[in-house]
Formats: sequence, C-alpha cells, structure tokens
Amino acid sequence: MTFKPGIVVTGASGRMGQMLIRTVSDSDKAHLVGAVERAGHSWVGRDVGEAMGGAPLGVTVTDQPLEAFAQAQAVIDFTTPDATLEFAALAAQARAVHVIGTTGMTEAQIARLEPAARHAAIIRAGNMSLGVNLLVQLTKRVAAALDEDFDIEVIEAHHRHKVDAPSGTALMLGEAAAEGRGVALSEVADRGRDGITGARERGHIGFSAIRGGDIVGEHDVLFAADGERIVLRHVATDRAIFARGALKAALWGQGQGPGQYDMVDVLGL
Amino acid sequence: MTFKPGIVVTGASGRMGQMLIRTVSDSDKAHLVGAVERAGHSWVGRDVGEAMGGAPLGVTVTDQPLEAFAQAQAVIDFTTPDATLEFAALAAQARAVHVIGTTGMTEAQIARLEPAARHAAIIRAGNMSLGVNLLVQLTKRVAAALDEDFDIEVIEAHHRHKVDAPSGTALMLGEAAAEGRGVALSEVADRGRDGITGARERGHIGFSAIRGGDIVGEHDVLFAADGERIVLRHVATDRAIFARGALKAALWGQGQGPGQYDMVDVLGL
Amino acid sequence: MTFKPGIVVTGASGRMGQMLIRTVSDSDKAHLVGAVERAGHSWVGRDVGEAMGGAPLGVTVTDQPLEAFAQAQAVIDFTTPDATLEFAALAAQARAVHVIGTTGMTEAQIARLEPAARHAAIIRAGNMSLGVNLLVQLTKRVAAALDEDFDIEVIEAHHRHKVDAPSGTALMLGEAAAEGRGVALSEVADRGRDGITGARERGHIGFSAIRGGDIVGEHDVLFAADGERIVLRHVATDRAIFARGALKAALWGQGQGPGQYDMVDVLGL
Amino acid sequence: MTFKPGIVVTGASGRMGQMLIRTVSDSDKAHLVGAVERAGHSWVGRDVGEAMGGAPLGVTVTDQPLEAFAQAQAVIDFTTPDATLEFAALAAQARAVHVIGTTGMTEAQIARLEPAARHAAIIRAGNMSLGVNLLVQLTKRVAAALDEDFDIEVIEAHHRHKVDAPSGTALMLGEAAAEGRGVALSEVADRGRDGITGARERGHIGFSAIRGGDIVGEHDVLFAADGERIVLRHVATDRAIFARGALKAALWGQGQGPGQYDMVDVLGL
Repeated sequence: MTFKPGIVVTGASGRMGQMLIRTVSDSDKAHLVGAVERAGHSWVGRDVGEAMGGAPLGVTVTDQPLEAFAQAQAVIDFTTPDATLEFAALAAQARAVHVIGTTGMTEAQIARLEPAARHAAIIRAGNMSLGVNLLVQLTKRVAAALDEDFDIEVIEAHHRHKVDAPSGTALMLGEAAAEGRGVALSEVADRGRDGITGARERGHIGFSAIRGGDIVGEHDVLFAADGERIVLRHVATDRAIFARGALKAALWGQGQGPGQYDMVDVLGL
Repeated sequence: MTFKPGIVVTGASGRMGQMLIRTVSDSDKAHLVGAVERAGHSWVGRDVGEAMGGAPLGVTVTDQPLEAFAQAQAVIDFTTPDATLEFAALAAQARAVHVIGTTGMTEAQIARLEPAARHAAIIRAGNMSLGVNLLVQLTKRVAAALDEDFDIEVIEAHHRHKVDAPSGTALMLGEAAAEGRGVALSEVADRGRDGITGARERGHIGFSAIRGGDIVGEHDVLFAADGERIVLRHVATDRAIFARGALKAALWGQGQGPGQYDMVDVLGL
Repeated sequence: MTFKPGIVVTGASGRMGQMLIRTVSDSDKAHLVGAVERAGHSWVGRDVGEAMGGAPLGVTVTDQPLEAFAQAQAVIDFTTPDATLEFAALAAQARAVHVIGTTGMTEAQIARLEPAARHAAIIRAGNMSLGVNLLVQLTKRVAAALDEDFDIEVIEAHHRHKVDAPSGTALMLGEAAAEGRGVALSEVADRGRDGITGARERGHIGFSAIRGGDIVGEHDVLFAADGERIVLRHVATDRAIFARGALKAALWGQGQGPGQYDMVDVLGL
Repeated sequence: MTFKPGIVVTGASGRMGQMLIRTVSDSDKAHLVGAVERAGHSWVGRDVGEAMGGAPLGVTVTDQPLEAFAQAQAVIDFTTPDATLEFAALAAQARAVHVIGTTGMTEAQIARLEPAARHAAIIRAGNMSLGVNLLVQLTKRVAAALDEDFDIEVIEAHHRHKVDAPSGTALMLGEAAAEGRGVALSEVADRGRDGITGARERGHIGFSAIRGGDIVGEHDVLFAADGERIVLRHVATDRAIFARGALKAALWGQGQGPGQYDMVDVLGL
C-alpha cells in the first residue's frame, strides 16, 4: 500500500482555499489532515466540509497552524505575503513541504524564505498550472529563435474583479521573452498603449489587458512579422488546475531535500 | 451599354492611392480618368501606371485637380484633412461625387464640408469596408439587447507603423456600443489599462491596442458575462477592401443628389 | 411580498439536474419544491441536497412525478425525449409550466407535445443560453445582409465526451444562416470535409467539429470573403448559464397562457 | 563585393511563380537570371516582367530549362511532381542548387530525387515559411512533454480554391504530434468527424478543415485537458513568406555539398 501524505490547507475559507480542500479530499494520492484560518474567523472550530456548505470531512478548522502542520507532510498555502512568511517558519519547524501559491511577494519577502528552506522543501510559483509553465518555456525558446523582425506582444484576459494589469503571469511571459532575446524587460516594455504613441519601436514587447465577465485567465504571446504570425496561447477555464498543480507539487516535494524549488522542477519541463 | 463613370484618384503615389488606381483600372464598372499629386511631386507629368512600376495606364499624373475633376464623375480621396477640404470645394465646383476616406478630421473640419455638400454628393466614412460597417451596426444592436452584466471590451490589432491607439475604427465601435446602451463613450471608456487599476467598473467599455508585423486591421467587440461571452470580430487582410468600398461608394453616389452620406447609406445596412 | 413560484426538477441526479437544483435553490425568485428520478434509482427517498453530497435542502427525491408537479408552478426538464413526452402530459394535467431543455427530439416527438400545449405553457429550446439565442438571430441577419461572396462556415468545439458532430447548436446556427439566405441547409451543408474535396462550392455552408478536454461549448460563425472576414462567436464556460436560462423561462412562463414558446420569446430578442 | 547568386524560377506564370520572380528581382542578395515555362505557353519568348503586367525585367521566358539552369546557381521550383523530377535531373547536371516547394509528391517520387542529390544540393519542404517550420518543432516538443490527458486537435483554414483537406501542413503538424508521442499518425487520426461519432478516443489526433474567402493559411495545434488548453498557432497572410523562405534556402544552399536538406537545416531550428 502506497503512503498517502497528509496535507494542511491554509486560508481555508477563501476561494482558492476551498478549491484546494476539495481537490485534496477528492484525491486518492493524499488526504486532508488540517484546515487553517486566522484567529477569530467564524469557521474556526467547525468541520471544514460543513462550513463549505457540504458534507462533513472530519477535519476541524483551526487557528493553530503549528499544531496542524506537525501532523502533516505538506502545507498548501495561497494566502498573503505576510501570512506566508509566518507559515514558512512553522512548516520548516514541522519539517513539512511548503507549497506557496501566494502572489504579490516582493524580492525582499522572497529572500526571507531562505532560512526556512534550509530545513524543508519550499516550492513556490506565480502560477501552478502545467500549461502556463510550459508556455513560459516555449516563449523563451521562440523568442531566442526569432529575430526582431518578429514583434512580440503579450495579451491577457481576466475576470472583472482583477485589480492589477498586466497579470503577474503576463509579466512572467514578458520576462521569458526578454530573456530569450537577451534584453531587460524594463527597457523594452510597452504598457498601457494609448493616444498618439508613434510607430512601434523595433525590439519592444507590448502588453494588453482585457477585463470582463468571469474569465479565469487567458494569455497569448504573439510574434508578428511581415506576412506571418506565431501565437502561443494558454487558456485556463477552471481554477482547479492551480489546485491540482499545487497538490502535484506537494507530492513531488516528498522526495526532495530542503531547498527552494519551482514548477519547472516539479513538472520536469 | 451601361455608362461607366470616370474616376479621379488623389494622393496617387501613396499606398492607398496606388491601391485605388489599381482597383479602378481593373474594374469593369468604372474607368480611371485622372490621378492627382501635389505640385512638385516626382510623379507629376508621368504615366501613373509606369510610375507605379507597371504597364502604362494612359493617365498622366497632374497637379491641377480642378482640370482633372472637371472630366470626372467622381473623386476618390484618401489624403489629409487639409487637402480634403480643398478637394471638396473643387469637386463641388465640378459637380463630381466626392468619396472621402481621409481619417483624422476634426469636428470643425467636418463642418466645413457642408457648403460643398450643397452642390454635390459627399460620401465620407472612417472605414470603407462592408464588413466593418456591418460590425458597427451589429455592435450597437447587441449592446442594446444585453444589459450591463455583459462587460464590453474593444480589442484591435494593427501593423507596427500605426501611430495612434486605439484605432479610429475601434473608437467607432466603442461609440456604437455606447450609443446602444444610451451612454456617452467619454464617460465610460477605459483606455491604456495599466498598473493597479482596481476592479473593472460596471458599464465601462475597455480598449486594447495590439501592434505588430503588417497586420492590416483586426477588431473584436467582446461582451463578457459570467459563464458566457459573445464576440463580434472583423478581420481585414487586404487593403483592397477599402478601395473596393470606395469605388462602390463612387458608383452608388451617381444616383444621389447633393448632400452628405456614409457607408451605411451606400451598403443599405 | 413577491410570489416565488415552486419548481420541480426532473432527472435530478444527472449533471444538468444537479446544476438546475443548485440554481433554483440558490435563487431568490423561485424555490425548489420537488426533485424527480425514475423508479428504482438509489436517490429516491433521500434528501436531494444530501444525495448531491451537500447540506440537506428539505426536498425528498420522488419517483412520482404527478404528485410533485401538482405542488409546483413549473417543471424544468433536461432528460430524454421519451421521458419528456410523459412529463409534458403530467405537467399539463397539473397546469404547470413545462420548460424543456431535452435535446435529440424528432419532429414526430415534438408534434406529440401539441395536446399538452393546449393546457399549459411549454417552453422548449435546443440551447437555453441568452448568448446563443442572440447569436442565432445575428447569424440570420448577417447571412441576409451579405451575398455569396462571403463563404459561411460554422465551427464548434466541445468536450471529449460529446458523441455527435456537429453539435445541435451548430446545426441551429447553420439553419439560421440558410434561412437568412433563403436556401435549405440540407442542400448546401458541407459536413465532414476530408480528402480530395475539390474547390469549395459557392453558397455552401461548412461545418467543423473540434473535440477535446472539458470544453463546455464554443461556436463560431465565419463569413469569409476576399480580403475580409466577419466572425460571430459564442463561448460558454459554465453550464450554469443553461440552468439560469431555464429558470428565467420558468419565471417568464408564469404570465403566459397555454401554447408553445421558445427562448426568443422569453428573451424578447 | 559579395557574390549574388543567379536564380531561375520555374512555372513562371503561376501564382507562386510570379511571387518568386518578384521576390528574387526585388532582393539585393540574388538576381533573376531565368524564367521557365512549358513549351507552347504564351509567355515563352516574352520579357517576364512585361508578361506579368509590369515593367520589363530583362529576362526572357524560355521553354529550355537546361540552358537556363546552366547559367544559374540555383533553381526555385513550385510546380508539379512530374515536372520537378525532370528539373531535378537537369539541375544536377548544371550543378545548381534545387529548391523544391512542389507539394503532393509520393514517397516513390521523393525516392527518385536521390540520384540528383548525389551531384547537387536539393532542399525540399512542404512549407517554406520560417513560422510553420518552427511550429512543427514546437508541436513535437509539446506533444512529448504532455501526456494523453491533453487531447490534440489540428485545425486549419484555407481559401475556397483549395481542393484537399486537411492541408499538407496540417498533416505535417499531425505527424510531428504523433512522433512526439511515439505513435503512428495513421492509427490515431480522426478525420472528417461527422454524425454519431461516439466519445473522443484517448490518444487520438483530430483534424478540422475550414474553407472560405482568400485565407492564405492558418494552422492551430490545440492541446486540451480538463480546465486548461494550450494552442500553438501560425497565421500566414502573404504568400511572399513562402517565396522569401525559398530564396533563403537557395542562398543557404550555396555553401552546401550535394545531398537532401529541408527547412529545419536552412533555418537552424
């Protein structure tokens, strides 16, 4: 019989938290052993399945993360930068793999994960989906293969609630394109194109952000030359892909020593 | 035998000018009787077909527009606002139909066409293609049929040489959407989305401008709600459609009295 | 206080049945009063919310449709043609509005709804979404406006489990295009294009069926001429739109006399 | 001063022939030294530029290929399989590089190029564009990276005059996908999907062919899983890209010994 690692989900009541709880409890490769919320949240003390409006799952929501982590082999965490830094220290103490899907961390905050990564595996990615991580690799490769006769544009579409533009994933794709070309994105990015812009500058990388409805996330990388175009596109239609990617990372992390990893390591791309 | 109206093309050496000359001289419903360039241009005095690098067409390029217009039933004019105002007066004097594809005219300049329109038919459009004009009509209708649960976005793509964003056609589509909803575009337009924008505001109309390669012109009007989307798309792949639309307008204008018209009149949409 | 009609859902355990139950019980404009399954089904006698793996909803699944319908103002029914014919007779007897989303009914089966429609309102549609019904209207109008210089193609994409091609909705769009042109679809349809087909025939309407992943349903109607194209596209990303459309039909039907209706009536398109 | 190789174009009067003549005569890296048509063709004996309706180019169309090839460093040939086999023998005799864009050659016909390839370089490709050849490489790589949870579909669109479906390029992409997965395309290809097809079979590769207007050529390779999709797309908008690719091959071939090559060699992908 294969060993099934026990998983704790933080931020249990959030949209991604609930998606993660469903994904872990439906999986036959892992089992849910904990659900964490902040002190004072109305879910604390309730069965997490019932709190989500469904059948009971036998796991009580707690505001004591260390106790929860101590019983687990992995923690999956899509919360906020500050919470994530605290969880990293506790997960390291519990020797649990820490899978981080939290976005918006600064370089300084990322550096502060280093001490924890000396005691346990940390897997962090701006986007946990297989497809997006593959697209990033392809973008870098194609940008390197084509010269500047091909103008690069990154176009993304997201739901109406998104507050930033372009998306973090679009910027990640832009970085990959710039790296493929050997330039710094900050020097060639065309953002928020509007008004009398003049002709497009050779070598620049443009960004467009479309917002509407409940679009989960769509990204196009366009390479446009005279007479032909290549488009590399990713379409996400279900947030479950991010939860499945995080679970895959948690399972992959069981065989790894302490250190910092990303989805390219997990997916073996 | 059907009468074939004689056509003069202004701005003969430009990209649209050459396209118009080819379209008119290839047509079996009209014939080319004149080609106008500004005084001092190297083409003046040469056969226009030879100047274009092809076989002679039997029409000499002239810098005397009134003489040329006097022999014609219609003038097709994709030049600049100032030149167009001058040509309008001369075409009216010659009682020739004036087809205007010139872009970038201000409201004040458009008002100055009025005296000419008392003597001859003027047909003016920001975009002469059948498809775009149909798209404008559809956009207005769909915007009227759907409520604000559907977020509207206008996305356009053009070649790298284009100097303004969004395109005039994109703005025309945005105006149509706003009119369908009974709002003023200037109060709901989201242009140049970039940075921390906050969530999308209900009822707003967004614009995105993609630039690259030699894309002739592509326009999407997106209506995005929860769980479903409608897209109305036009793709132009050959500038000849604008020339064919202009010729169609010149032919249609033969039967019309003095006044100002647009492509919706011509196409009977 | 507004009256909230009571709704029965048939085929309660199916994918659409469960979606309908969630949609009705979440709505503040109607309430769920019954859930029907066939005799012998394991859900009969259980609370339907619990059977779905969630919290109880206070409605017990029954195999006695007439008893359920007698307490309701409307029946929503996405089942099979035979079951639907039986339910139509019972709904008429109960004077309940019958909303039919069942697909694959033959002309003969549809004719057999007529007696029921003398006693109660029947609203039937191959696709209950607002967007698709709007797309059908637009397709007919555009096909009427454009001549045969524009080649028409209907392209659809659905999930890997779909067993028929092209989709019923694609055929509905093809019918609308043919009607707009005044031709019979059966005489101009190009289906399953493969091998040495010869050049495309003028006036024909082509169909393509893409299958993969869990795509809910995407339909493009392409009008392609020399130098330009128009595309009318609908993208469904959530089956809830069909359930919401069905609920909207059930509410609309409360004010109607006996007779047969479709979504164009409901949506006032 | 750099040496500029002399180029002969065969099939001079055809659509691709004329495009090749324009591309070669506009290039500053090569010059046109010959234009070949079949005996009896009305262009034989005329200046090829004038025959094309433009200014003279100083090259007379001939029906004597060997004489023309003897003065050239390369032959560019988009004709028919039989003509190409004859030209291959003559080009070998003249020690000229033979660039073959002819489509529809059987395996047996391709084998008959071998003797010629012992004396001169032959560069043959089903599609000469940089973008398509890059797309083929990417398709193979992505198909190898993703498992069969991702359903593969190849969708192509071409103008109304195309007589075969799917396009040769679509089949080339399908072969690349099959190779990436280690299966034989003939065993997994789903072509001409129509009627009651049953659910999609895991591991199959589907093909769709869209026909309309004057679409030059568009190819999508779709990888669709639950919740996400990747699309690799190529759009050709100008046949000149094929002519430019052929000229690039002719120039690249100057440095090569006898043998058979393809565009992957030329482009260094």
